[in-house]
Amino acid sequence: MDKRIYLFNEGCKNDRQLLGGKGANLCEMTALGLPVPFGFVISTSTCREFFQLGEQLPEGLLDEYKAAVTEVEKIMGSRFGDPQNPLLFSVRSGAAISMPGMMDSILNLGMNDEIAKGLARKTGNSRFAYDTYRRFLQMFGTVVLGVENVLYKNTLQQYKLAKGYQSDTELQAEDWKVLVRNFLQIASVPEDPWVQLEMAIQAVFQSWNTDRALVYREMNQIPKNLGTAVTVQSMVYGNFSEDSGSGVAFTRNPATGERVFYGEFLQNAAGEDVVSGIRTPQPIEQLAESMPEAYRQLYEIQDNLEQHYQDMQDLEFTIQEGKLYMLQTREGKRTGRAAVKIAVEMVEEGLIDEQEALLRISPEQIEAFLHPMIDPEATKKVIATGLPASPGGVTGRVVFSADDAVKVAATEESVILVRQETTPEDIHGMKVASGILTAMGGMTSHAAVVARGMGVCAITGCGDLSIDYERQQFITTKGEVVEAMDVISLDGSKGEVLLGNVRKVQAASSPEFQTLLGWADRYRQLAVWANAETLEDAQKAKDLGAEGIGLCRTEHMFFDPERIVIMRLMILAETFEEREEHLRQLFNFQQKDMKGLFRIMDGAPVTIRLLDPPLHEFLPHQEEEVRALALHLGTSFEKMDSRIKQLDESNPMLGFRGCRLSIVYPEITKMQVQAIISAALEVCAEGIKTIPEIMIPLVTDVREIEAIVPTIKAVIDEIFLEKGTSLSYRIGTMMETPRACLLAEQIAPQVEFMSFGTNDLTQMTYGFSRDDIGKFLPVYLKQQILEQDPFIQLDISGVGRLMKNSIEESRLKNPALIYGICGEHGGDPSSIQFCHDIGLNYISCSPYRVPVARLAAAQAHLRLLRKK
Amino acid sequence: MDKRIYLFNEGCKNDRQLLGGKGANLCEMTALGLPVPFGFVISTSTCREFFQLGEQLPEGLLDEYKAAVTEVEKIMGSRFGDPQNPLLFSVRSGAAISMPGMMDSILNLGMNDEIAKGLARKTGNSRFAYDTYRRFLQMFGTVVLGVENVLYKNTLQQYKLAKGYQSDTELQAEDWKVLVRNFLQIASVPEDPWVQLEMAIQAVFQSWNTDRALVYREMNQIPKNLGTAVTVQSMVYGNFSEDSGSGVAFTRNPATGERVFYGEFLQNAAGEDVVSGIRTPQPIEQLAESMPEAYRQLYEIQDNLEQHYQDMQDLEFTIQEGKLYMLQTREGKRTGRAAVKIAVEMVEEGLIDEQEALLRISPEQIEAFLHPMIDPEATKKVIATGLPASPGGVTGRVVFSADDAVKVAATEESVILVRQETTPEDIHGMKVASGILTAMGGMTSHAAVVARGMGVCAITGCGDLSIDYERQQFITTKGEVVEAMDVISLDGSKGEVLLGNVRKVQAASSPEFQTLLGWADRYRQLAVWANAETLEDAQKAKDLGAEGIGLCRTEHMFFDPERIVIMRLMILAETFEEREEHLRQLFNFQQKDMKGLFRIMDGAPVTIRLLDPPLHEFLPHQEEEVRALALHLGTSFEKMDSRIKQLDESNPMLGFRGCRLSIVYPEITKMQVQAIISAALEVCAEGIKTIPEIMIPLVTDVREIEAIVPTIKAVIDEIFLEKGTSLSYRIGTMMETPRACLLAEQIAPQVEFMSFGTNDLTQMTYGFSRDDIGKFLPVYLKQQILEQDPFIQLDISGVGRLMKNSIEESRLKNPALIYGICGEHGGDPSSIQFCHDIGLNYISCSPYRVPVARLAAAQAHLRLLRKK
Repeated sequence: MDKRIYLFNEGCKNDRQLLGGKGANLCEMTALGLPVPFGFVISTSTCREFFQLGEQLPEGLLDEYKAAVTEVEKIMGSRFGDPQNPLLFSVRSGAAISMPGMMDSILNLGMNDEIAKGLARKTGNSRFAYDTYRRFLQMFGTVVLGVENVLYKNTLQQYKLAKGYQSDTELQAEDWKVLVRNFLQIASVPEDPWVQLEMAIQAVFQSWNTDRALVYREMNQIPKNLGTAVTVQSMVYGNFSEDSGSGVAFTRNPATGERVFYGEFLQNAAGEDVVSGIRTPQPIEQLAESMPEAYRQLYEIQDNLEQHYQDMQDLEFTIQEGKLYMLQTREGKRTGRAAVKIAVEMVEEGLIDEQEALLRISPEQIEAFLHPMIDPEATKKVIATGLPASPGGVTGRVVFSADDAVKVAATEESVILVRQETTPEDIHGMKVASGILTAMGGMTSHAAVVARGMGVCAITGCGDLSIDYERQQFITTKGEVVEAMDVISLDGSKGEVLLGNVRKVQAASSPEFQTLLGWADRYRQLAVWANAETLEDAQKAKDLGAEGIGLCRTEHMFFDPERIVIMRLMILAETFEEREEHLRQLFNFQQKDMKGLFRIMDGAPVTIRLLDPPLHEFLPHQEEEVRALALHLGTSFEKMDSRIKQLDESNPMLGFRGCRLSIVYPEITKMQVQAIISAALEVCAEGIKTIPEIMIPLVTDVREIEAIVPTIKAVIDEIFLEKGTSLSYRIGTMMETPRACLLAEQIAPQVEFMSFGTNDLTQMTYGFSRDDIGKFLPVYLKQQILEQDPFIQLDISGVGRLMKNSIEESRLKNPALIYGICGEHGGDPSSIQFCHDIGLNYISCSPYRVPVARLAAAQAHLRLLRKK
Repeated sequence: MDKRIYLFNEGCKNDRQLLGGKGANLCEMTALGLPVPFGFVISTSTCREFFQLGEQLPEGLLDEYKAAVTEVEKIMGSRFGDPQNPLLFSVRSGAAISMPGMMDSILNLGMNDEIAKGLARKTGNSRFAYDTYRRFLQMFGTVVLGVENVLYKNTLQQYKLAKGYQSDTELQAEDWKVLVRNFLQIASVPEDPWVQLEMAIQAVFQSWNTDRALVYREMNQIPKNLGTAVTVQSMVYGNFSEDSGSGVAFTRNPATGERVFYGEFLQNAAGEDVVSGIRTPQPIEQLAESMPEAYRQLYEIQDNLEQHYQDMQDLEFTIQEGKLYMLQTREGKRTGRAAVKIAVEMVEEGLIDEQEALLRISPEQIEAFLHPMIDPEATKKVIATGLPASPGGVTGRVVFSADDAVKVAATEESVILVRQETTPEDIHGMKVASGILTAMGGMTSHAAVVARGMGVCAITGCGDLSIDYERQQFITTKGEVVEAMDVISLDGSKGEVLLGNVRKVQAASSPEFQTLLGWADRYRQLAVWANAETLEDAQKAKDLGAEGIGLCRTEHMFFDPERIVIMRLMILAETFEEREEHLRQLFNFQQKDMKGLFRIMDGAPVTIRLLDPPLHEFLPHQEEEVRALALHLGTSFEKMDSRIKQLDESNPMLGFRGCRLSIVYPEITKMQVQAIISAALEVCAEGIKTIPEIMIPLVTDVREIEAIVPTIKAVIDEIFLEKGTSLSYRIGTMMETPRACLLAEQIAPQVEFMSFGTNDLTQMTYGFSRDDIGKFLPVYLKQQILEQDPFIQLDISGVGRLMKNSIEESRLKNPALIYGICGEHGGDPSSIQFCHDIGLNYISCSPYRVPVARLAAAQAHLRLLRKK
């Protein structure tokens, strides 16, 4: 049987898995000779044992911790359960992965009437003794016995009211004595300190599986069965006297990253008083004046700890009668901006190297440099929660239609566009909106994709909303009614809809941010490209470091009002000739757009996807618009309506789209290729290198490629012949149907690149429509049937297996093939790791995800290096 | 270099690939010593050479066929191109696989003015000589020179008109001479017989690639590059004299299969006259009277040939001046009924064995025993063509709604229900209709699946129709207008819509049919189950030999008017309690249905799929019905409408359905399981063994199974406990998402059977919605991007690979797993072969496909045996 209990002088910081973060660090500080109240740790494996035994403490554990207590008693010079010279314990949980606020702890354990008396006698501080006793009773009652905390609070409150006290400091020893009696009536606590200890240990173990702990682990993808350690530490008392106190401190400023010792201190107070906000603490600097020796010692310790841990530390300390005790050290939480500044400065200080700095920044922390964010400190009222579709924080007036968005935005008002879901017809409204909120749709719905592309904050799939377009209002499930023109804020990073205007932190780059991304570029193997079609997006992508365009969705170029009309005429054309005529007009737009893109990308590859969506998406669906189109075409509403309905599809995602359009209407493909290649030649003539890559979407069989590629090449050859010049280009395919992946080997020799379209591939592999997943995804996540929305985080075992196999098999047939990804997963850090591991050449993501992707790509490489 | 030319005495019947069917059989007959006019065959590989050389005859071929001609001259005692003693040839095509009417042939080749004169002189029959000459000119002109045949026909017609002739027999030598001159003016034919021969050979080769040949090969899935052989055979003349003639005959009756010598003969006529129908031939029996010696010889030969070939033969013969010549023998085409009778009788006669008999029947030939068919001999007018969704032939009055179908059917009239597409709401109309015709939808659309299930003739995806519900008519692309109550016929086996009442052949079993199926059962390894949910279907399936039910779609049980209302209330229930109440009512129906099924299946396994379709499918969509439901529920139309719209999905196939329903609404699953198990127990109590198999649909992850199976088992255990009894049951899953197949290994230990739902699996693997495929499938088939509709014939390389892999990987984890298929492919013969090859245990198909599947399963096994 393994050792279950470790004294503080038997472990070190590397024992996190076994002793939990808190326990391992207490051991480490003890080893460093710092003033740590002595104690011991019951291991996480004992917790797992506890659950295996059906929530029973394993046999023999009692003897083990009795022995440990004896060791502690020796060092502390007092005895557990001895009224003459009592030793009290704090009993805390501590898991390997920090789970702040998730686990419960009990202080001052080992207390009863006798011992309180003894403590009063020994310390000569009766008020302290009974204050300590009542604290113990309340904590033990709530944490171990499951009593509602409000009962204790009310009892105290009633007492203070009756006595006319304003603050706890006014209560004297006799007051606390009365309250101890009252508290004991709320719930009786066992008198035997050993029984208290046993129950506390059990309670800590059980707290591993409280609902809130389960939810936290689910949200943060922490494995279920790690278990928690129990730290049993001798108490010291910041509330003992005026030359006592408690405080928390950071070795650097956790908000800004500035290299200053930063913290707060509360005189004559226990640690929990600092956190609870009952009294306002003083800045740590004032400690230098009030207790200079303790401050000097603390300052030295914090400096040493940061050097020792090579990271910014979050410390807890207590001063009892002028003597400093260290109760905790851990890596300090910090804002994204601080994280980057600290990491880069630590490299400059020689504390860590570039690789370590890169690995320390979570890709999400980068967001803070790219979008204004809701200030985490701001007070806010969350009225509804949806999916965090596009990050950032915005405030604006609610509108319920794209047209209204345009109208209100014209008055310089910031606008939040609220829709059931968005369609390409809403683009003009989305362009002017500061934020987008939809009741339906997932993380890869139209609203989400477009919003991320534009860097606009968005929340999608907010099922809490019931939108009533007619009344121009929405009602939340909580009953909040929001009318058009009311002001709301969106936290797109959390998916929270907030009432009114909420304070934000502005986005801005920083020298450290640029330095960090520069290092990322040095270490990553994956090229980072962007999904972009507008000139603004392309420019943004390039500014943020994109090395190419991996997905230019040409259809998005046809939604402008003047273009959509021609597109519709083209689609509804009854003859080949008619269609050709409208295509000629579209050609001009397309060519102009492509020239702009080529100029911006200036020699970097530009991957243009041939027309992909079902044609039906371009057609009007509202009666008014149908009537207008009918009028324009000189036909009746009924005929037009029936024509449009004919093009309707039961499952458009699996319908007449992608390269199926190229097969049935090769003239559309020809027009597109003409526009792309002639644009490229013209831009070349301006002295700007261009590399057009033509991408065929939704391929299911090599014969589709064999049918389309010759068409493309014939058009290109004709243009080359006509212009008497040429350029190099590439033809490739999207890999977005399971069948294409299964037959990649056959497709390989026919193309020069393969780009995994993981949005569609995920839809088909699971049979999940991303637009409809909202009906069951929340339940799937809650029941842990899915760990993550597979449209956010790549499903490695299913979709990933298809990708990996197709790379392995196709590479054998065409070793020169270039592989990329252009689904939304291209911007997701954990998916990027997988993309790197299976040997993709590039990832392509929304422009605003490019910095995130650059960092994640570097981390992917560094992590793989470390594994080797 | 390979030998290119084979004299008739250098080959045999096994040389089909090299010499074509016709050439090989002529060689075989020559070897048997039968009276075959001598000749030679140019091989199919020479044809392939010809195309490789860009349609040039290979060097050296000329010398080779000159040598061959010399050999023929020796045997025939006459010389090619010699006016004194001319030898004429027929030049015919002949591919390895019979392609009737697809390839062109030229008779009487080697003719010119001089030779005609010589022939007249030698035979003393000037009329014959010039008749032969004009026949040659017309054939050479049309086949080799590409002249329109109508020009020759008109010339002849004009001449006869001018002369007042009624029939060709009235024309004398001088008349034919004049016509020869006229024909030569239509197109000049080279005089040199050797040039004629060279051109003819080229023309035959080229005819391999005529449009009609291409279409035929595409339709019949014959590989593109087999090539044709050229048979060059000495001419004999049935039109030489009154004791000459030509005929065709079958060794058995090709319509009924009866064992009688059967054929037709035309006196003093060339072979082509028999076929062309210019004169009415006499039954072969009359030959016994007019030319008893020739008849006796022919009778003996046909008997020998059948014995020799061990199959019914189709013969062509010519009698010249009383002497019999054999021109062709081949396997005779026969009707489905004849095929079965012949095969079974030949086994009884000891000519072939059971295995051979089984392999000779094409599964399609079985259809004739199951459905009345349109008489192939009947005159008919095809007004539109669609997909042959459900076989058979029917006639009835056109109606355009399910309600009208019911009304008209009530008057005892036979009804054809014509709809844009059908939905579950049309079921009551489909039930009473004799045939179903839809403008939209594929082979696995709702209409097709339901019709096949009911054994009702149906044509779907008939894009030729433009239906106008308001005017109660449809218009075909050919401009035919059909009004409600007009009479049309459907040929569901061919997909043809026919005007009026067309004669049919009635379906009926036969002793031979039962014998054959009995043999099939002896040889097949695959169990054959059926997809059925109604008692009628289950009974039908059992009668046709189904050994179990592989798919009972429980949702179909809820579409009856009285049930759908409760189903709707259940779906729209706002609370768990409300839903429970409606579920209790549904329970009663479900339990009753299940009892019926168990009783019928009497111990055979019954696989019940849990509720699968998106709930939206159960809700009303027409305003009227929505209003009715709103009234029923005491709510407003607007509210009801918006509620229904809320449940609407963008891509319902990929939406909230299948086991996703079980996860979100476990109470529905519980009700279903209660109904199934309590029904099974009650039926057991009646002394009838029952094996319920509960099937979980649309699984994507083992965790779905892990969530649902315990729910199912808990319900079952509770029932067992309550009733104090138990029975054995199985729980399994459908494999119908690519992800389930990719992760089969994980799913395997959790289930007892896996049933491949290849309809959905095909949809997701390709990203093809079966309801929308009509927009591009015709183009895909035409361009040979797809060889077959993948919803009809299993896609072996994509979908099949997923199936094969998942079997291989899952079997390792659970060797006891039972594998089946319950998609539409379970009834498709070529897909059944694959199912057998990858080791499925059973196939499940529509009841009316069961006999087809039994035969195909036997053939699959026998073919695999023969390969080994």
